[in-house]
Amino acid sequence: MITMKCRKCGKPSIYHQKHSGNNYCKECFIKETKRKVRKTLGRDVLKNNIKVAMGLSGGKDSLVMAYLLNEYYKQIPNSNLIAIMVNEGIEGYRTDGIDAAVKFCEEYGIEYKIVHFKDYLGTNLDEIVKIAKEKNLTMNPCSFCGVIRRKILNRVSIEEKCDFLAIGHNLDDVAQAVMMNYIEGDVKKLAFLGKSLKHPKFVKRIKPLEKIPEDEVLLLAEMLELKYHKSPCPYSCLSFRSEVSDITDNLEKNHPGSKYSIVRGYERLLEHIELPGYTGECKICGDLSATEVCKVCSYLKNLGILEKSKFEKI
Amino acid sequence: MITMKCRKCGKPSIYHQKHSGNNYCKECFIKETKRKVRKTLGRDVLKNNIKVAMGLSGGKDSLVMAYLLNEYYKQIPNSNLIAIMVNEGIEGYRTDGIDAAVKFCEEYGIEYKIVHFKDYLGTNLDEIVKIAKEKNLTMNPCSFCGVIRRKILNRVSIEEKCDFLAIGHNLDDVAQAVMMNYIEGDVKKLAFLGKSLKHPKFVKRIKPLEKIPEDEVLLLAEMLELKYHKSPCPYSCLSFRSEVSDITDNLEKNHPGSKYSIVRGYERLLEHIELPGYTGECKICGDLSATEVCKVCSYLKNLGILEKSKFEKI
Ligand code: SF4
Ligand code: SF4
Ligand SMILES: [Zn+2]
Ligand SMILES: [Zn+2]
Ligand SMILES: [Zn+2]
Ligand SMILES: [Zn+2]
Repeated sequence: MITMKCRKCGKPSIYHQKHSGNNYCKECFIKETKRKVRKTLGRDVLKNNIKVAMGLSGGKDSLVMAYLLNEYYKQIPNSNLIAIMVNEGIEGYRTDGIDAAVKFCEEYGIEYKIVHFKDYLGTNLDEIVKIAKEKNLTMNPCSFCGVIRRKILNRVSIEEKCDFLAIGHNLDDVAQAVMMNYIEGDVKKLAFLGKSLKHPKFVKRIKPLEKIPEDEVLLLAEMLELKYHKSPCPYSCLSFRSEVSDITDNLEKNHPGSKYSIVRGYERLLEHIELPGYTGECKICGDLSATEVCKVCSYLKNLGILEKSKFEKI
Repeated sequence: MITMKCRKCGKPSIYHQKHSGNNYCKECFIKETKRKVRKTLGRDVLKNNIKVAMGLSGGKDSLVMAYLLNEYYKQIPNSNLIAIMVNEGIEGYRTDGIDAAVKFCEEYGIEYKIVHFKDYLGTNLDEIVKIAKEKNLTMNPCSFCGVIRRKILNRVSIEEKCDFLAIGHNLDDVAQAVMMNYIEGDVKKLAFLGKSLKHPKFVKRIKPLEKIPEDEVLLLAEMLELKYHKSPCPYSCLSFRSEVSDITDNLEKNHPGSKYSIVRGYERLLEHIELPGYTGECKICGDLSATEVCKVCSYLKNLGILEKSKFEKI
């Protein structure tokens, strides 16, 4: 067997990057990834006097993201990082993830805050799923859960006066999301996926890992010996997403670089798309909303638990 | 077995349209398709004093398109249809297709014109493939063939003073092409796929069947008893396209309507994309070109057969 050499330092390589044809040793791979993520973030994000919130689930993506952001910001004066862990209230699942995230934050000296669906909704996801069943409402737990989590992360980021909210989506996640919207033909969702509103009620979202493929995130997590949470959520039933993920995985296998080109093409398209201007606010919770009542409030209304909810009007 | 009824007339249905849930009898299915294609064409195309060229290969798509266009235009005063058959010079393949197209035109009384690669290039596709092999040039016959055919069809349409050039692409073809460009991230190709230049040197292309799925085109061809040409071209090796066609076919199977939504979303995106303005012309043949020498002329140059070529400068 021929051992390939690292293209940067000439030491034996341990990783062959298929889409570029490059080989890397461990140190150079970590360095190269840091360089790529730094480029994704850019100077508007990596600068003085800034505070960044990070949504941490305790999974590999969120911990790799937190590790890298901490590496950058510890060298930048007057910058602040805060991790936000959202506990949806999923029996036997979420607390393990939060434990992993807390241990990570304590090891690296990162400030953190744990918030609960219950604090905002008066109830948790397990109970909501039960109520929906009793009321015979068809509901995909994930789409509900995702919308609420985003709302909560945005609110906490505002309370904490953060300039950005970092989310651990990797290249595979973004390519899948883009492809799903291409297939569904949803131009509005496509626009919102990639652009952020400029508004005091909305903290700009950033995706530090959006150019790093999932398998590289995994490799990094192992190299950095991060103790991340692995088991899947019991509600996870992402049938359409996993169908699309098979598509993008196969394309990548047959044409290395496909995930990049999907996302790059999408970004170029995005330059041409105007974001529909939001002028409205939800009349119940006050959050930005294209409709009179926002998605979350109307979900809660349908479930009959709007009264219990504690989203203060902002 | 329960026989479903036609949603239009109540007679026994013979076709279940999965994405809409509708059932149709033969007559109503043909009628419904005519209505859809008429809507695709619109009033700018279906009007008096117009001349439309059609590229006919003799395959099912081209004959169904020609049948439908003939049905519309025979009712419109001062309108003219002309079929153009391009003979690439592919031994044992193309003449059968052209025979089918000629018989069709004669049966329906449609004017037609047969042109040959040889008339324009001084040589044919079989010979070009040979030359490329001898010169060790990597060349995909299809991409070369397609570019030349488009150029020839455009020139003949100009000579014939046509207002539009109709191409028999069906919904599957368009969905595949859109998806291929999404995957390759090619915004420019995406724009040119859907928009047409306005220029005296360019006849606007229309795709009457772009909203009709391939299996419905096939069904129509059978219902109408069209004698179309079936065998595949010996050069056909559309590996990426067939990979993508598997993707869109599977999506359609699992989520009926996916091909529509891919194309509809693409059309909506297109509204946001400006077509890069072509100002340049190929200095060799005079056709519109983004580069100094157009694709065809530079292909011919590489092959060493530019001198033989008879594309007159326009
Ligand atoms: S898998 Fe679905 S339900 Fe579970 S935490 Fe994620 S979004 Fe929520
Ligand atoms: S299959 Fe390819 S080579 Fe054959 S006629 Fe079509 S484009 Fe030309
Ligand atoms: Zn190295
Ligand atoms: Zn609301
Ligand atoms: Zn009927
Ligand atoms: Zn030219």
